[in-house]
Amino acid sequence: MRLHSALWRDSKIDELFEPAAEISGLLRFETALARSQAAQGLISDAAATTIAELCATFRPDMVALNDGISRDGMVMPKLVNQLRAALPEKHRDALHFRSTSQDAIDTCLMLQLRAAIGILESRLGESLASLDILNKGFADVAQMGRTRMQRALPLKAGDRMAAWKAPLQRGLKRLATLKPNLLVLQIGGPIGTDPSPWAIRLGELLELGVPPRSWHTARDELANFASWLSLVSGSAGKIAVDIAMMAQNDIGEAAIAGGGRSSAMHYKSNPVQAEVLVAIGRCNAALLGGFHQSLIHEQERSGAAWAGEWMILPDMASHTGACLRGLNQLLLSVEFNSGR
Amino acid sequence: MRLHSALWRDSKIDELFEPAAEISGLLRFETALARSQAAQGLISDAAATTIAELCATFRPDMVALNDGISRDGMVMPKLVNQLRAALPEKHRDALHFRSTSQDAIDTCLMLQLRAAIGILESRLGESLASLDILNKGFADVAQMGRTRMQRALPLKAGDRMAAWKAPLQRGLKRLATLKPNLLVLQIGGPIGTDPSPWAIRLGELLELGVPPRSWHTARDELANFASWLSLVSGSAGKIAVDIAMMAQNDIGEAAIAGGGRSSAMHYKSNPVQAEVLVAIGRCNAALLGGFHQSLIHEQERSGAAWAGEWMILPDMASHTGACLRGLNQLLLSVEFNSGR
Amino acid sequence: MRLHSALWRDSKIDELFEPAAEISGLLRFETALARSQAAQGLISDAAATTIAELCATFRPDMVALNDGISRDGMVMPKLVNQLRAALPEKHRDALHFRSTSQDAIDTCLMLQLRAAIGILESRLGESLASLDILNKGFADVAQMGRTRMQRALPLKAGDRMAAWKAPLQRGLKRLATLKPNLLVLQIGGPIGTDPSPWAIRLGELLELGVPPRSWHTARDELANFASWLSLVSGSAGKIAVDIAMMAQNDIGEAAIAGGGRSSAMHYKSNPVQAEVLVAIGRCNAALLGGFHQSLIHEQERSGAAWAGEWMILPDMASHTGACLRGLNQLLLSVEFNSGR
Amino acid sequence: MRLHSALWRDSKIDELFEPAAEISGLLRFETALARSQAAQGLISDAAATTIAELCATFRPDMVALNDGISRDGMVMPKLVNQLRAALPEKHRDALHFRSTSQDAIDTCLMLQLRAAIGILESRLGESLASLDILNKGFADVAQMGRTRMQRALPLKAGDRMAAWKAPLQRGLKRLATLKPNLLVLQIGGPIGTDPSPWAIRLGELLELGVPPRSWHTARDELANFASWLSLVSGSAGKIAVDIAMMAQNDIGEAAIAGGGRSSAMHYKSNPVQAEVLVAIGRCNAALLGGFHQSLIHEQERSGAAWAGEWMILPDMASHTGACLRGLNQLLLSVEFNSGR
Repeated sequence: MRLHSALWRDSKIDELFEPAAEISGLLRFETALARSQAAQGLISDAAATTIAELCATFRPDMVALNDGISRDGMVMPKLVNQLRAALPEKHRDALHFRSTSQDAIDTCLMLQLRAAIGILESRLGESLASLDILNKGFADVAQMGRTRMQRALPLKAGDRMAAWKAPLQRGLKRLATLKPNLLVLQIGGPIGTDPSPWAIRLGELLELGVPPRSWHTARDELANFASWLSLVSGSAGKIAVDIAMMAQNDIGEAAIAGGGRSSAMHYKSNPVQAEVLVAIGRCNAALLGGFHQSLIHEQERSGAAWAGEWMILPDMASHTGACLRGLNQLLLSVEFNSGR
Repeated sequence: MRLHSALWRDSKIDELFEPAAEISGLLRFETALARSQAAQGLISDAAATTIAELCATFRPDMVALNDGISRDGMVMPKLVNQLRAALPEKHRDALHFRSTSQDAIDTCLMLQLRAAIGILESRLGESLASLDILNKGFADVAQMGRTRMQRALPLKAGDRMAAWKAPLQRGLKRLATLKPNLLVLQIGGPIGTDPSPWAIRLGELLELGVPPRSWHTARDELANFASWLSLVSGSAGKIAVDIAMMAQNDIGEAAIAGGGRSSAMHYKSNPVQAEVLVAIGRCNAALLGGFHQSLIHEQERSGAAWAGEWMILPDMASHTGACLRGLNQLLLSVEFNSGR
Repeated sequence: MRLHSALWRDSKIDELFEPAAEISGLLRFETALARSQAAQGLISDAAATTIAELCATFRPDMVALNDGISRDGMVMPKLVNQLRAALPEKHRDALHFRSTSQDAIDTCLMLQLRAAIGILESRLGESLASLDILNKGFADVAQMGRTRMQRALPLKAGDRMAAWKAPLQRGLKRLATLKPNLLVLQIGGPIGTDPSPWAIRLGELLELGVPPRSWHTARDELANFASWLSLVSGSAGKIAVDIAMMAQNDIGEAAIAGGGRSSAMHYKSNPVQAEVLVAIGRCNAALLGGFHQSLIHEQERSGAAWAGEWMILPDMASHTGACLRGLNQLLLSVEFNSGR
Repeated sequence: MRLHSALWRDSKIDELFEPAAEISGLLRFETALARSQAAQGLISDAAATTIAELCATFRPDMVALNDGISRDGMVMPKLVNQLRAALPEKHRDALHFRSTSQDAIDTCLMLQLRAAIGILESRLGESLASLDILNKGFADVAQMGRTRMQRALPLKAGDRMAAWKAPLQRGLKRLATLKPNLLVLQIGGPIGTDPSPWAIRLGELLELGVPPRSWHTARDELANFASWLSLVSGSAGKIAVDIAMMAQNDIGEAAIAGGGRSSAMHYKSNPVQAEVLVAIGRCNAALLGGFHQSLIHEQERSGAAWAGEWMILPDMASHTGACLRGLNQLLLSVEFNSGR
């Protein structure tokens, strides 16, 4: 957390990726795995119940867990180790049975992304609603269309708002197409080849789709979702740069209530929210270029490509959350008029 | 053209973006525009016919046209000017009527992308077919699964090929969803607000979809297509890095017929095709990050954001064409065995 | 903070950018500004002393400050406001006199970067020292040189280490050239044009260089430093990928003590530190592409370009810190031998 | 070559990377290699003279050469093969003796970059000279300083020009530091370990520096030069965005002679040169992010990382050439005044 980071981070989305939330997701996976394997007769019901009871209240030894993360490059070996130590000996092998770190961590990511998408989808809807309200108030305001940074021909503020709206609507539509493909279990066991007959039940328990096979190394759905994040934040950035340019004193086609103040010039009202949206759009675009590097995921599991995803995706989601929160604020605080 | 550029460029796709092809597309647009406007009674049939006849045989003065491009930042003002000079005075105003440079250039881009997508789609199909043939030959070959660059558990070559196949298949499916939204007319006139009643007829003539409104400044469909290009080349890069690693002398699970030679070591057989696919995947990912910057497209037309697209998209398409050509070659020239 | 983020973040560098540290740096700037302006007779000594005393103990109202940040897009307007409210009325105007938010925030960034560079420089030195120790132990080990992922000709482990060492040494040398140009005051007042006659004294007090003029909008030194961060992490990534490839079971030229464990396969020893270094190198490269977007800094202060820097630079510095910490660990835990 | 690509490409720099120029550079390398090895007594003077005579007039069979490039992933194996076939049998082994493709191609790149840097350095000097002329004419013009896209305080046009000038001057200075480290021979033979006792003479013949050891896999100097290209084009982009904003009709602080025309609106004068400079700055920044990926260059030669450099660096150099040409034009065609 940095002094200015609330400008481009979303605390609700950040929460989803915090250690407590991630451990909770991993424990939820282990519980559902045991339950679904017990339903298949692969482990005993007693084991599944004992695992579920442990996971419901388990608090890891975080110091040892962090040591494990440093050593193993991920949380699962030590977490499984701590959980097994807390289980009666007879049930230890039933935990994390025929599973692997990637099944747990990727499935947990899907639980996190499902929640993040819920927030983003709802905020995108709010921005569209705010845009409709703005449109009701100002659609007929006469303004000057400008192309290539020069006056071109008159238009109405409603023309601008229609141009802003379409990509946001397409964003919602794309998300509807993308979600069922993205939000699926990770299954496959140590090298992604286990047919995992418990998958259907596991999917029911976690309310995630069941993919035809593991996607340990096929990260295109994730990369496509990263692209969606950048499409949304870039489309918001376009609205923002327009409003910032309309709000130039010499143009005066937009007025933003509650503009940012200056420490030196008391008369100023800066379009700070708009500027931040531009910064987010540009940063997310660059991060997208980084995320797509991880498509080149060598062999049956690449620790490098996988860690590259971890470094980038939660940030992109958080930025996009802040972007849509800010877009909504901006749309609710701007007024249009016919300029100077 | 550089000495090595055939490795990562596709001459068939490059041809689509060469000056002759682009001028041909622009003339096709002007012809169809005139025809469709004549059908609406907005210009005379005689004018439309004269424009069509001129465009069918017109060869621009390229020296003057290039001067125009330098001055105007795009081809249309001078091209329209040259065309008008070649028309009888009475039909001059009928040319490019209620249109604008962006309508012409973006619609022409759609004609180019349609052809490029045809090539890419067909090559993706070929790669999938080659993968099926490879799978028939080698699915049951026992190999060693490797995670995090260490031996993990045995698998079959068919397991690897299944992991490679899924993202390519999803690529085809995504393309089917994406095409009707992408391949649409650009209409809207000088500032994107003209309702363009001739659009339906224009769409029929050019066999392009008719969008609900102009997308002069809403570039999300293009950016989503750029992302598709990177998804495909990244997925090919994953196959390539796997094959290069399997072909390491010390592993010996893959043998590539016709491997690259060294100028110094005559015994070597280098997996050069695989290496190039990795390079393309990484370059396209970086270019994607650049392309998405252009989502932040200010006002009613941004010369900066638009030129940014021009700089990047044809290269990404060409790289992806070379990538799929190379992927097919690689899949046709590799053999799998059980290693050392 | 995320469960895995200690892998790629450095807590010592992160601390430098936390709110408490940043506020402390900003207060240090205001104190030194007042002192240096008093030395010029621009404000009274009494005012400077009162300001200094206040800043030495001031604890901002963080709730109100965070509200101010949201509203103003940066911390200074509200922080100056809170400080002035805590000053006797007669000294209020002497605070932040002829200054501006950017003077304070950029100068504070220099204090932060100076400390971060100290850490990075020292770690780079440690990695070089560890490499020398490794070289003493293993320089003569016979290994196989591999080009284009195929066996080429024999070499010594010392040849590899010499290739690894040179870019790290150049990194130190580049840093020595870069530091005096980078670590300078930001001066200039509201629009960067104030000659700031107090600059020499201010530079002495903060132990920062005095630039010939303000660099409010000329961000090339910062972008060059971002590039340095990526050069270092990319050079470390090269060492890491080499060690991971040497440590492949089938090659066996490197053995890493304390390798990462698997949750499913107890016999594995994963080169997790090496993999993380590769991930950091790739992520920093992408972030560099994002940072350089901020070179295009419009007018006398771009809130968008400036916020873009804030989003990226502390992360790149933190990643590089983790990278050098990890590189040192890796070099201290690896052993070389002649392979299988 | 595309219709619009002259906007962002520089034909003089492109020429340096065309097949004819590259082959000429490679032949020059082979000639100088033979001469310098003969001076050491490693090959006979007769062989060196015969090789030099052949290289002076040799025209490769381009069809076969291009086949070789496709197969080998680079030009050298086939080129050496063709050259040897044209030599008397007794001198064949003397050609490319103890050398390798990378020694030839990288050294040739240095010859190309030296020429490209000459062009860039001279253009940067011209832009600085044009800026001085502009400053003489308009330094005292009163304008309005704008921060965060809002009017702030008055300034002089000279204040703006001083802010533009500094990073260009630093660019020249950085280039002077960077050149002697960058423009060096590549030596080392097949796996980069050959001490190459002929290096000093080879460096004299090619007028390139002699590095302490081969940099086959240590690409930091190249990546640092790529960063320099982006620093320059980003700094030009800042000037350009300022001029485009000053030239807004509603601000009117800049007038650009010979502005771009519109195909639809005859009254417009578009700041097309400025817009292109912004596009180049953004594209180069993204390409820089791609180039730095190649720092992670595995083993003794990575075909993937090396090809990644080939894909990107000549484009960045060409874009920067076009950028500086355009910057100079822009500075020569703009006039400043006090606005509306």
